[in-house]
Amino acid sequence: MRSLLDFQEIINQHIANQNFNRFPSELYDPIAYTMTQGGKRLRPLLTLMTCDLFGGNLVHAIHPALALEVFHNFTLVHDDIMDQAPLRRGRETVYKKWNSNIAILSGDTMFAMAYQYAIQTEDQYVPKILRVFNKAAIEVCEGQQLDMNFEVITQVNLDEYLEMIQLKTAVLIGVSIQIGAIIGNASDEDMKLMYDFGIQLGIAFQIKDDLLDLYGSEKYFGKKTGGDILANKKTYLFLKALEQCHNSDKQALIDLYNDNQMKDDLKISKVKAIFDQLQIEIVVESIMQDYYKHAVEILDSIQIEKNKKSVLFSFITSMFKRDY
Amino acid sequence: MRSLLDFQEIINQHIANQNFNRFPSELYDPIAYTMTQGGKRLRPLLTLMTCDLFGGNLVHAIHPALALEVFHNFTLVHDDIMDQAPLRRGRETVYKKWNSNIAILSGDTMFAMAYQYAIQTEDQYVPKILRVFNKAAIEVCEGQQLDMNFEVITQVNLDEYLEMIQLKTAVLIGVSIQIGAIIGNASDEDMKLMYDFGIQLGIAFQIKDDLLDLYGSEKYFGKKTGGDILANKKTYLFLKALEQCHNSDKQALIDLYNDNQMKDDLKISKVKAIFDQLQIEIVVESIMQDYYKHAVEILDSIQIEKNKKSVLFSFITSMFKRDY
Repeated sequence: MRSLLDFQEIINQHIANQNFNRFPSELYDPIAYTMTQGGKRLRPLLTLMTCDLFGGNLVHAIHPALALEVFHNFTLVHDDIMDQAPLRRGRETVYKKWNSNIAILSGDTMFAMAYQYAIQTEDQYVPKILRVFNKAAIEVCEGQQLDMNFEVITQVNLDEYLEMIQLKTAVLIGVSIQIGAIIGNASDEDMKLMYDFGIQLGIAFQIKDDLLDLYGSEKYFGKKTGGDILANKKTYLFLKALEQCHNSDKQALIDLYNDNQMKDDLKISKVKAIFDQLQIEIVVESIMQDYYKHAVEILDSIQIEKNKKSVLFSFITSMFKRDY
Repeated sequence: MRSLLDFQEIINQHIANQNFNRFPSELYDPIAYTMTQGGKRLRPLLTLMTCDLFGGNLVHAIHPALALEVFHNFTLVHDDIMDQAPLRRGRETVYKKWNSNIAILSGDTMFAMAYQYAIQTEDQYVPKILRVFNKAAIEVCEGQQLDMNFEVITQVNLDEYLEMIQLKTAVLIGVSIQIGAIIGNASDEDMKLMYDFGIQLGIAFQIKDDLLDLYGSEKYFGKKTGGDILANKKTYLFLKALEQCHNSDKQALIDLYNDNQMKDDLKISKVKAIFDQLQIEIVVESIMQDYYKHAVEILDSIQIEKNKKSVLFSFITSMFKRDY
């Protein structure tokens, strides 16, 4: 049976074998830069593991798996322009290292390349893969738009936040898994279940990210904690705190959060003090665990022997153990 | 037999039936705005006409035809950001009317929607359509990059220019026709010939555009002539003039072309005077005619009765009669 390391090796090897340095170099250098930066390769790993779970042929899954990684990286390249983000994975973003025109066009090219990889499989899978991939691609854009809207809207509730992260983050996790199920020749019912498994997992991942941004270990996290607070980001933590606190305290929290004059460390510690009083870390951790547990229940319900599920299961468990 | 008007009616009706006004409106309003602005609908017309030429079922071609129109409009939305263009078809560009973030993300969504339309046909056509469409999408990005490179490179020759317009413009014309041939169940040989026909046609169209920008009738052209000269654009006219003029005059032409201080009308008339001396309009018109004639020869060589080709033939002829 294949281990996590085996799957990682297949993906890393496959990415290393791609030639991203094509002509014109102004277009492809940023693509090579982005694709060789590493990252967790979460989405292609999920595709391969799911394909393997259903006994599919990994040879047919490797290119579509790569498509999901390229697509994910395309969204980061464009998001970084929109968010004016200077750093990504500890290195300059494409938009910053080159310029926004280059980032727009290299991103567009990566989007098209993702489709090129997505169809490098048996023809029988192509229409099915494309149908779910297209839907996800559009939803990811919708999620990014909602995220941008939330920056200017004062009132956002938790349901709206969940809708946003489902679109922006969870559907791509869901579809990475679903495409693995398609190439594994899973039944329509299992395919749907695996997609739902991915959605729950994706929401849990995003809530985990929100938690780590404030409570993660700086040593492993690779950046200073509290960045979301400094960026006034309406995270799950903030929205939950707003929901939990007394009416009279709501405005105070909003004002503090929107204060851009206060010194960084002071602002973070003041917000954190309010969160601590409301036990936000524990409350949100528990909500995240509910999504995670729901994901595990769905995976359990799939009619495949338990030991075949163990690699995927221990992979997702490890994702939630991380404190970085 | 169907007339040009019939094909136009099918496309306009189909576009009118699409609901582009979805949620979130910040994302979809610019898409509805772009898609309902009109335009020649050249690419979907070519898809439908070619499908019909080979006796294909237009019901299977209408969505892929729309895909090409949506994709083309996506490229315009992103190009207008990169070129900082304030106007398109006489109206404000998306980037100008909203902002660049909206234009980036609405454009991305249109790209994904194009793929959604491209696969709304019989499953048997999907892998073939996607293979040629992906290749074209990437080449269009490469062409746009070369076009941006040319803005900063001082020395560009005609071969490089032709490579650029082939990638940026002609391949999408080629693939619009090729996809019509695929759905018309054309033989592989005819499919290839029709693609080549489209490439020749596309190059001729672009050279025609360069000519119209300076020599078109302002009344019909809808904007002032000479815009390319004011933007220091290295058009076919300019590069041909550089090639034709004496070595001693080359630098003078380059300096004049790059002069951004001179009054608009004076700069245009001075450049035009040099072009006239070199008979650039006649020389370039004749080169354009060569591409057009080559296109017609390829169309003639397709083994289909002549009268069936008449709609497509008179359509492309009319495109070259336009002086706007």
